Amino acid sequence: MSRIRKHVERLLPYVPGEQPKARGLIKLNTNENPYPPSPKVLAATQAAVDDRLRLYPNPTAKGLRTRLAKLHGVQPENVIVGNGSDELLALATRAFVEPARDCVQYFTPSYSLYPVLTDIHNARRREVPLPVDFSLPTVQELRSFKRWDFKAALTFVTTPNAPSGRGYATANLEQLCRAQQGIVILDEAYVDFAQENAMALATQYDHVLVSRTFSKAYSLCFQRIGYFVGPAKLIEALDKVRDSYNVNGLGQVAAEATLKQLTYYRANFRKIIELRKRTVEKLAALGFQTLPSATNFILTKPPRFAARTWLKRLRERKILVRWFSDSRVKDYLRITIGSEREMTTLHREVKAVLKG
Amino acid sequence: MSRIRKHVERLLPYVPGEQPKARGLIKLNTNENPYPPSPKVLAATQAAVDDRLRLYPNPTAKGLRTRLAKLHGVQPENVIVGNGSDELLALATRAFVEPARDCVQYFTPSYSLYPVLTDIHNARRREVPLPVDFSLPTVQELRSFKRWDFKAALTFVTTPNAPSGRGYATANLEQLCRAQQGIVILDEAYVDFAQENAMALATQYDHVLVSRTFSKAYSLCFQRIGYFVGPAKLIEALDKVRDSYNVNGLGQVAAEATLKQLTYYRANFRKIIELRKRTVEKLAALGFQTLPSATNFILTKPPRFAARTWLKRLRERKILVRWFSDSRVKDYLRITIGSEREMTTLHREVKAVLKG
Repeated sequence: MSRIRKHVERLLPYVPGEQPKARGLIKLNTNENPYPPSPKVLAATQAAVDDRLRLYPNPTAKGLRTRLAKLHGVQPENVIVGNGSDELLALATRAFVEPARDCVQYFTPSYSLYPVLTDIHNARRREVPLPVDFSLPTVQELRSFKRWDFKAALTFVTTPNAPSGRGYATANLEQLCRAQQGIVILDEAYVDFAQENAMALATQYDHVLVSRTFSKAYSLCFQRIGYFVGPAKLIEALDKVRDSYNVNGLGQVAAEATLKQLTYYRANFRKIIELRKRTVEKLAALGFQTLPSATNFILTKPPRFAARTWLKRLRERKILVRWFSDSRVKDYLRITIGSEREMTTLHREVKAVLKG
Repeated sequence: MSRIRKHVERLLPYVPGEQPKARGLIKLNTNENPYPPSPKVLAATQAAVDDRLRLYPNPTAKGLRTRLAKLHGVQPENVIVGNGSDELLALATRAFVEPARDCVQYFTPSYSLYPVLTDIHNARRREVPLPVDFSLPTVQELRSFKRWDFKAALTFVTTPNAPSGRGYATANLEQLCRAQQGIVILDEAYVDFAQENAMALATQYDHVLVSRTFSKAYSLCFQRIGYFVGPAKLIEALDKVRDSYNVNGLGQVAAEATLKQLTYYRANFRKIIELRKRTVEKLAALGFQTLPSATNFILTKPPRFAARTWLKRLRERKILVRWFSDSRVKDYLRITIGSEREMTTLHREVKAVLKG
């Protein structure tokens, strides 16, 4: 007899992302922010490394939730903090989706974690392809797709979309939310680099949650802080299924300090957005076709060689970018917007590859 | 229609532990270690608060797993690190227990999280009372209990037991493990304060896992680090259902640094064990009947007043201890062994209550 659940045995073992050992590599492959946390955030976090480490952290991240509630104009009971937003996305499957019966629905391509979470939960995947330009289908278009389920227990929408970088208008997202009967999670991991966000929908509808993270925009991947905003009833359900002390103490300290330094981070967003624009222009001059991006990365179709060949050539030149084998995006490279210096190096090395 | 799963709606909302706001309270209620982390651990953690916070932590806690494997004489694939051992206990229900069909089995009283995890997972609880002295029943005794299930998908054993503090002999635990057909998790959260541990069983049997934590013995509650040791096949199953970046980076740094300072921590274990002995003696002289403890806390039956009255009287004197309403332990107080000074204050205040 196997002691492991059948569907778990069938899961593919987890393959961690590439952790390059070689020094001097430029990492434009995982959408990390090129700028460090604010010096004041580092100082506040260092100052908290003391005797308190022996004590349990606040079990509900109360201080952080209070600050987040104020930032978004909601109450603390409309906010739940997770060990990264990944934990909260997983909690959502456990709170809202009945295994073996219900489905988890999402567009493809979008965040590659959704099928993993669906499989772990032993739920049914419902994957619906985005149009070729990765735009958000209208409700009318979705009605004509047989595959879209307006009654799906849980629908994830990555907005702006990853890996395309495409931003979606709140008005269009609202139409979609209004048409869905089950829970909708608007996964705004990259929204600080976009022109608009859909946070208002989480306060207006009783079935909509918005997911945010401190990882990308707030340079805090290391400490695993994400959060959801939404109706108190749904937040309470998520709260019931989470681990009691799910958010580490120094992460709470760093995230609270971050919210006092938004000016620093917003200046970085502007720099990244400006550099994104210049990168797209420079690559266009070399024959790259780049999709419009509302994120801190671009999806771009390179000239001359296959995208996979570019991945290899750039790696030989110590630049890591991302390539996906999925047929929808296999002709593209995904490139994180790094620092000024890193993007200058990228431009130089791209020209060198083209000269061959 | 409700969008929340039925069994989740029925769960009681999570009630966080008491977070006393008042200054000057002596906290002997949550089994935290009175000693801070080693100064070298604090220094190593402070030194890691830098630009790296913008990057993802190692997704498999590889450095920490390698050190833990060396410490326990196993391979890294026999170790999984969690966001506290609580996360790993929850992962075990998801990897090994089929909801609605299988049962999770444990003794009562033991760690109060087990029924919570069972209910969250929508599995069946199988609770079997310990004898009045909280000793581990023999396999023969369990066979005579109709309620014990030797085929339970998952059995949790808190060893040493909490809240009684009673330690269990490895030979007896081994007999129990040999008789079980499903997975057995030996939850050794307090084992560093005991005379023996059962780690060897996790390396000898293909269905036994041992759970450990850095929270209690290693003064690191704040950073949420726990781990399991066991057969590679079971560790791989747990690995498949965990979140990709489940362990925060500064927690990994602090735990790795801790493993280089074991001499410091072991000296603290000896101090706590010695102080436990003296506390039991002093309380005995005042009429308290204390169960033998192999942990950093004691379960003691106070004289004169009901245990619940003692809880109140001590609180009035700024000392927090723990009282459980469960009929098995309602006549007892659970008291964490704090620092020398805290235990001296406890002794003084207990005498004052008795003089009342």
